[in-house]
Amino acid sequence: MPEIRKDGIVERWVVFSPERLRRPLQYNQHPPEPADEPDPFAEGRENYTPPEVFAVRNPGTAPNGPGWKVRVVPNSFPALRVEGELRKDAVGLYDKMSGVGAHEVVIETPLAGVELEQQPLENIVNVLQAYRARLADLAKDARFRYLFAFKNVGALAGASMRHAHSQIMALPVIPINIREKLDAAREYYAQKDRNLFEDILRAELKSGERLVFQNAGFGAFCPFASRFSFEVTILPRQQRAHFHLCTDHELVLLADILRKVLLAYRVGLERPDYNLILHTAPVRLRKSENWDTLESDFRWHIEIFPRLSGVAGFEFGTGFYINPMFPEDSAKFLREVKTDA
Amino acid sequence: MPEIRKDGIVERWVVFSPERLRRPLQYNQHPPEPADEPDPFAEGRENYTPPEVFAVRNPGTAPNGPGWKVRVVPNSFPALRVEGELRKDAVGLYDKMSGVGAHEVVIETPLAGVELEQQPLENIVNVLQAYRARLADLAKDARFRYLFAFKNVGALAGASMRHAHSQIMALPVIPINIREKLDAAREYYAQKDRNLFEDILRAELKSGERLVFQNAGFGAFCPFASRFSFEVTILPRQQRAHFHLCTDHELVLLADILRKVLLAYRVGLERPDYNLILHTAPVRLRKSENWDTLESDFRWHIEIFPRLSGVAGFEFGTGFYINPMFPEDSAKFLREVKTDA
Repeated sequence: MPEIRKDGIVERWVVFSPERLRRPLQYNQHPPEPADEPDPFAEGRENYTPPEVFAVRNPGTAPNGPGWKVRVVPNSFPALRVEGELRKDAVGLYDKMSGVGAHEVVIETPLAGVELEQQPLENIVNVLQAYRARLADLAKDARFRYLFAFKNVGALAGASMRHAHSQIMALPVIPINIREKLDAAREYYAQKDRNLFEDILRAELKSGERLVFQNAGFGAFCPFASRFSFEVTILPRQQRAHFHLCTDHELVLLADILRKVLLAYRVGLERPDYNLILHTAPVRLRKSENWDTLESDFRWHIEIFPRLSGVAGFEFGTGFYINPMFPEDSAKFLREVKTDA
Repeated sequence: MPEIRKDGIVERWVVFSPERLRRPLQYNQHPPEPADEPDPFAEGRENYTPPEVFAVRNPGTAPNGPGWKVRVVPNSFPALRVEGELRKDAVGLYDKMSGVGAHEVVIETPLAGVELEQQPLENIVNVLQAYRARLADLAKDARFRYLFAFKNVGALAGASMRHAHSQIMALPVIPINIREKLDAAREYYAQKDRNLFEDILRAELKSGERLVFQNAGFGAFCPFASRFSFEVTILPRQQRAHFHLCTDHELVLLADILRKVLLAYRVGLERPDYNLILHTAPVRLRKSENWDTLESDFRWHIEIFPRLSGVAGFEFGTGFYINPMFPEDSAKFLREVKTDA
């Protein structure tokens, strides 16, 4: 059974999941390229994965057989287990809890060798609908406080499978990274009576120097203090704290801008390894927390960054980053990539 | 000129240093192994580096010539520049400051192909004395608030040079990672009238299940919520907030335990890439901060972790980690490695 432990000094939790040791371990100098033979995510190999929890299917096809466009299944090597009660314990000075959570895989296409951004817009919308459906469903489970989706592409970004996929996780605790954003958003609203994310989006749309793309629903820009060269934040124009409350129309516009960013990466940076993270508001706060303005204070958003450079002693020691490229230059580069999209 | 920018939402600063672009960029899938031909850190090639700012030398040898054991020089590709005034500015919503700081390289041996842990104890002590001397010297500069040392070994840990070396940095701002530790230490002391680090060290020495090594000056253990398999924290028994105030005797005991840990890595894990970070107290707090118990609240310490697995979407999204191995198992493994040391 996995276990979640809190650091003795800082607000950092670590998921201990010995089952993950069943995956091939990377004790060599370079992470291996993700293997995919036989590809357990391909159409016709549905029995290689646990039974699906969601799918977008052709009419008349049966679950766990061929005929799907997007398929969500529990992770075969889950970091957290969905069964069991959430128990919290002290261990001497320290705190731990049982490793209860969810860990699912969104298989983005039945085809091997096709990346998310190479698909027609409609299929990208299907993937985003899968995120929304799973987050909405997991939100009902009273054991979970935080849900999010992320995507690791390539070995340097932590992917162990090559077939296009994302991951969905549910956690019984609110991550420190989100907590810091929530606190900042709440404090800003309390001080200025304005939404922090709205102010940032307006400033970026107005100045334009860090703007990469925009459409009727979203702005995509390289953030002022980008951790990585070509890092992009996608912010919705519509105020919503929770991604899973997005409308169909919003998902179409999101698919459009996401595809543009990923195509600019693909063409301009020659298909870099990258991470994509969907940050959304917690589905449950601590019982002691009374925060009735969450819906107006915080706004869901997406962060994407290619892994062109490593994370080293400076970053681990400080929590800060060194970036050789100003975001104004990154944005200009990405805007000018010719993608024919 | 480098620039330091603060994120618009969270307390995260990023150093923008376009000069680092002069280093070979890693746009390929796998970071290249550090190159070293010709080795600019070897004895006899002192003119390949900027003039030394500290050295442990054989009697009668002249600065910037052969005859040294440890040599500290400014980084040829500095992330921060030591010249100039510290200016702070607003940019619309955002904050930035000039990229003033120090970035130095500690060349740990005149010999190529010899790692820190392969050297006689006396040479490791020389390296630690170099850390102490440089931190003590940089502490005098009123522009700097935080000083620290770190070591990246191997491409996966961010090293671009193979010759054994560490880095020293001075920053005009206190990193968030340290700020969180300082806050925790202060709060703990205020609540319990006891030092948090002392309590952790005592608990680890007493239980022993996560203890790796100990000597008269230090305990080395795998922390309760280790982020990485085989992660080790080295805590001093002697209460000191600042590393640069250590005595010679303490440095000898530190060299001894550090060598044991690194030899256990080398033999047991087949010379993994790793990061080492020396966390010490800030040399200057904000003017508004009145904290006269810093010396008793906080304790300097070292964190070391092999880079056997990557940092992926989960870690970036949450600030949390997934670790397949419990620290009790990591500690047992490291204790039992036969190093003949």
